Amino acid sequence: MSGPFYFDYAATGIPDAEIAHSALEESLAYFANPSSTHHLGKAAQQRLEHWRARAAKTLNVQREQIIFTGGATEANQMILLRLLLNKDPGNTHIVAAGFEHASVHESLLTLKHAGCKLLWVNPGNDGCICPKDFLAQITPKTRLVTLMMVNNETGAIQPAAQVIQNIRSLPHGNHIHVHIDAVQAIGRIHLNLHDLDCDSLCLSAHKIGGPKGIGLLYLKNPVPTLLKGGGQENDMRAGTENLFGICGCVLALEKIQQRHAQSRSHEQLWLSRLKDMGATFLPADRAIHPENFSQGIIAFAFPPLPGEVLMRLLSDRHVYVGTGSACGQNKKDRLRALTCIGIADKIAQCAVRVSFHEDTPLEHSLQALDILEEIISDQRKILNF
Amino acid sequence: MSGPFYFDYAATGIPDAEIAHSALEESLAYFANPSSTHHLGKAAQQRLEHWRARAAKTLNVQREQIIFTGGATEANQMILLRLLLNKDPGNTHIVAAGFEHASVHESLLTLKHAGCKLLWVNPGNDGCICPKDFLAQITPKTRLVTLMMVNNETGAIQPAAQVIQNIRSLPHGNHIHVHIDAVQAIGRIHLNLHDLDCDSLCLSAHKIGGPKGIGLLYLKNPVPTLLKGGGQENDMRAGTENLFGICGCVLALEKIQQRHAQSRSHEQLWLSRLKDMGATFLPADRAIHPENFSQGIIAFAFPPLPGEVLMRLLSDRHVYVGTGSACGQNKKDRLRALTCIGIADKIAQCAVRVSFHEDTPLEHSLQALDILEEIISDQRKILNF
Repeated sequence: MSGPFYFDYAATGIPDAEIAHSALEESLAYFANPSSTHHLGKAAQQRLEHWRARAAKTLNVQREQIIFTGGATEANQMILLRLLLNKDPGNTHIVAAGFEHASVHESLLTLKHAGCKLLWVNPGNDGCICPKDFLAQITPKTRLVTLMMVNNETGAIQPAAQVIQNIRSLPHGNHIHVHIDAVQAIGRIHLNLHDLDCDSLCLSAHKIGGPKGIGLLYLKNPVPTLLKGGGQENDMRAGTENLFGICGCVLALEKIQQRHAQSRSHEQLWLSRLKDMGATFLPADRAIHPENFSQGIIAFAFPPLPGEVLMRLLSDRHVYVGTGSACGQNKKDRLRALTCIGIADKIAQCAVRVSFHEDTPLEHSLQALDILEEIISDQRKILNF
Repeated sequence: MSGPFYFDYAATGIPDAEIAHSALEESLAYFANPSSTHHLGKAAQQRLEHWRARAAKTLNVQREQIIFTGGATEANQMILLRLLLNKDPGNTHIVAAGFEHASVHESLLTLKHAGCKLLWVNPGNDGCICPKDFLAQITPKTRLVTLMMVNNETGAIQPAAQVIQNIRSLPHGNHIHVHIDAVQAIGRIHLNLHDLDCDSLCLSAHKIGGPKGIGLLYLKNPVPTLLKGGGQENDMRAGTENLFGICGCVLALEKIQQRHAQSRSHEQLWLSRLKDMGATFLPADRAIHPENFSQGIIAFAFPPLPGEVLMRLLSDRHVYVGTGSACGQNKKDRLRALTCIGIADKIAQCAVRVSFHEDTPLEHSLQALDILEEIISDQRKILNF
């Protein structure tokens, strides 16, 4: 067996071809513009609402709380950048974790440029936000808080429910918009939107085997938005609805939500073998308290072997892993998520990330680990580490 | 033959199934995240750049000037809303036609709310902007002008080239960002971006037989954008690239650009038969100077028969037409594009729009016209008009 051995699910999943083909047939059968009021338009509109209802059901929320977007990046931008409509940016405080995805981080910098005040919360060296630290940054001027539910680079599960509960207990807690980026959480940890009490939460279809170019935003109540136009998506997100993407997104979502609790078999194998190889876990807590991490993501390093070099050596042997966020590859702040949990630059530069899926064959992990072991053994001889 | 007879291309085209299937296979074969730097990611990146190069070639521009977006609505929002980054909105003047698409119109209202000054130019009663009227609105504080190339409700071709030439001849003319919405122009009139000298221009794939959820923005030079995140699309539009949409968009674009000059056979048939039926053309110039209109769009009315009623009667007989912009169906300003050319509300409310495609069988037009004639004849008896 010679691969490919794909361990880069946090960047994008292997698309479910059956879902893709079903979604394509749906989009060809109901091709009309759902805003057209003739019979073909109404038929497309009905299918659109059919998929919206199914998405709502699987997430245990109301149909009208589901907004389809052009991706999770757009959903994050939509929730954050609407604060540009605020006439008093100086009195608009925003609290966010230091390790948020680039689409959140960059949007926050745009808001800062516009005069909003950002208050960052850095996680502890276990990769987790402390709910008390988060609460300490909330002021009477806080309008929005944003938190990633599972970190895309370390897999650390964030105490989102506790953070939200703390906020809601404040006198003005119900006036603070709480946004959750659950892109890496869906399919990895239990997600019950009904219990979570956030104001908005975004998901991406392509991370769970659905199409690219489609995201889902749960929105508790309508909010003013910048993405105005033809009034689609309850006037929250304009643009002709993408039935291919929407159908594919909902089918992928249903499939992943219908799963039973995931086994930790891959994870146990990787942790045990990596420990034997002398890997540095990022953070170290990854191996000590695996229950605090999503089982689908493991970050580690073999310093001083640069992560980029290790990734390429693995790639040459058809083992595909990541080096941190794919969405940060060209950015100066590529190491932000790791360095903000206290990992030194020189170690962070050695990070690689394996991310897998319930359906990944265990045999792939076994083969990939054998290849990794050979490479590390060779590199130790060459680099003398 | 009993239909369907589809005449709502301006709302969305009938998707080209062959293109859709090719694009799907492409996206399944090259599924990795193009930002991943392993071999699979690089292969996806190469395909992405392959399609970008082909789009650039067919539009006669440079590869790096092509940005793929989540649709034309997003492309319009992206170009306009970035003015929110401007620290001096009071000195930011914007000139736009009064009949722009909702995605432009609503974004302009957002900018007005932020303090920018909007200067509207209304077309003459022939549906066309007068270049001199447009020029008269330009001030030394004008930062951006935006113009639709072919109006989506009347088909009136706008003198975009002349408007741009006038602007460029001003002392500060090269500092004004000129944005063109060419969504209804592509495939209907000759489009040479190299000669047009605009700063940006947007297209939508689904109007020309490609997938929904994907747009193309020509951008002469990079500009600051609100859509920041993972640095994709030359840092102009963040989000994991949608290879299905991109491939489908480019294939549809190439197909439509490779066509020879379109025949006016459908148009001549519709104009002649509608004249015989005593239709009111919207604007009246539509029948008198057809050369000033895109041959794919004809708006007309049989007052006092409401457009919505006529559209439904046609829909019941499997003839599918529009009533103005599909993207304005739920909006108060649904009649904006018609009333701003001086058409009275009571006539505008009677408007229906037929929009077709080079590949629409002429037989469909003949059958649709027979059905229309029967309906009008019946309604004349019932309503006594």
